[in-house]
Amino acid sequence: MSLIVVGSIAYDRIETPALPEGVKVLGGSATYFSVAASFFTRPGMVGVVGDDFADEDMRFLNECGIDTSGITRSKGKTFFWHGRYHADMESRDSLDTRLNVFEGFKPELPDAMRSPDILFLGNIAPVLQLSVLEQMKNRPFVAADTIDLWINTAMDDLLKVIGRVDLFFLNEEEAFRITDAPTLAGAARALLSMGPKAVVVKRGDAGALLFTTDGWAFVPAWPLDAVTDPTGAGDSFAGGMLGFMDKAGDHSFTAMRAGLVTGSVVASFCVEGFGPRHLTAVDRHAFDARVQGFVKAARFDDSMLPRLGG
Amino acid sequence: MSLIVVGSIAYDRIETPALPEGVKVLGGSATYFSVAASFFTRPGMVGVVGDDFADEDMRFLNECGIDTSGITRSKGKTFFWHGRYHADMESRDSLDTRLNVFEGFKPELPDAMRSPDILFLGNIAPVLQLSVLEQMKNRPFVAADTIDLWINTAMDDLLKVIGRVDLFFLNEEEAFRITDAPTLAGAARALLSMGPKAVVVKRGDAGALLFTTDGWAFVPAWPLDAVTDPTGAGDSFAGGMLGFMDKAGDHSFTAMRAGLVTGSVVASFCVEGFGPRHLTAVDRHAFDARVQGFVKAARFDDSMLPRLGG
Repeated sequence: MSLIVVGSIAYDRIETPALPEGVKVLGGSATYFSVAASFFTRPGMVGVVGDDFADEDMRFLNECGIDTSGITRSKGKTFFWHGRYHADMESRDSLDTRLNVFEGFKPELPDAMRSPDILFLGNIAPVLQLSVLEQMKNRPFVAADTIDLWINTAMDDLLKVIGRVDLFFLNEEEAFRITDAPTLAGAARALLSMGPKAVVVKRGDAGALLFTTDGWAFVPAWPLDAVTDPTGAGDSFAGGMLGFMDKAGDHSFTAMRAGLVTGSVVASFCVEGFGPRHLTAVDRHAFDARVQGFVKAARFDDSMLPRLGG
Repeated sequence: MSLIVVGSIAYDRIETPALPEGVKVLGGSATYFSVAASFFTRPGMVGVVGDDFADEDMRFLNECGIDTSGITRSKGKTFFWHGRYHADMESRDSLDTRLNVFEGFKPELPDAMRSPDILFLGNIAPVLQLSVLEQMKNRPFVAADTIDLWINTAMDDLLKVIGRVDLFFLNEEEAFRITDAPTLAGAARALLSMGPKAVVVKRGDAGALLFTTDGWAFVPAWPLDAVTDPTGAGDSFAGGMLGFMDKAGDHSFTAMRAGLVTGSVVASFCVEGFGPRHLTAVDRHAFDARVQGFVKAARFDDSMLPRLGG
């Protein structure tokens, strides 16, 4: 099995109400995705870093079992983002965004990465996502994510991407903006009509919904007493879900539904610390306990359920 | 089995983007609750109406199997609310609120209603909720709901109510306002420490969460392509849940979890029309299909789930 992700690699400065002075950590969509996926598989990462990218950070990725041969090192600085979370720990202000070497990023996949089983297109520009699809030698299971920026500036290309993926991830605001539907179910139906076999709508602390032509499923966010840093939650959700599906070698609805739970568990650990490093310290029994907790919370006793019909 | 609800009975004028001219319908928390509960049991309703309350509306309630002997008819007009929903069909403006006879409402329960199995205290003033508790001859399973207004104006009495109920319903904003906790799970833990055995946090189209000392559970909102009128969704949720529990004669965690699904299904039908009347026309097979749809969407294949521990 093999899983390739193309996306951003960054340094983030993150401020929260509990840590107003902030902390600088490794970040980026491809980073969170890969570390999450490395719970289950050995993902290959494609992205660009600057000459300031620390050896210890590259070592960290390798120690996670991530194939970093698709990471280009360019002259200049690594993508930098500085954000401050509000008290609700969901809304945030971007205080500074420096694309740096990421501005000229043109993904060129190493030959060995051009025939994966699963390809994840992180939230880079749709035109770049399309260029990665052109580089495929096979027809992998393709998943993609996006951000609001591309809905505002590159909708035509974004629609082409949506038309060519199997699984599309987005948050609820993006779903409403792309489809203009009045409800999430309506938005999902509209998105499915554009091409994907499946759509995952991410809702932050309200969990996530999976819509497919074969059915739908849902998972809540694990009920945490506190959130330390929500950065990377969506990417680690996708990484957990697709990493699990890669290990299972299964892209069916059943596998996606199990992947949904997996993603939510990984994301719940992600937001309990700053940056992706603490994910590698997650206790394996604590992980299993959350999975079983979801199963227990979702299990309805059929004999007990209401029944009105004859 | 017997279930008593004390709450508002109203006439609502409701405007939505799809029906900007608005429509006048029967409303009120006790009304929606009772009609929803009448799917499963014969609830008794306690409230006040004015001399303008139409005979056909009283007849409608009786035809639902609702015991209306606890409804007082006072000189004056019935509580009137005029609201306008925004495009998101969740947020709304109150254009007019006339308490009318509801302003002087002092619930006096008929003797036959003072020893129910389940008592639901709708979102009337906490001091009135407490007065109803004083009228009980037994110790029923007590559930209560509240609104933002009482958090602003009657917090001391509201805390007394919370300390004396078994199951407390509230929405997420109210949970955060009462507890000042940073997450919903934290808010639920704080609320449970105040007395209730269980807390249901209602999240609109993101469903509902049940927190108890024995565990937690969740149910999403049924994915609808369109919402016609969200008024009464929370009350019909509570009515469906407690009506089911009354019929089952079971107040356990398992029964509450099944009740959560029941409430979500009833609420999903509620928001598909204006007012409570269309609920009586819900097809029984359509009802069962949504229950089974939730079960299917929530069922995870244990053999497929991720497992990291030894």
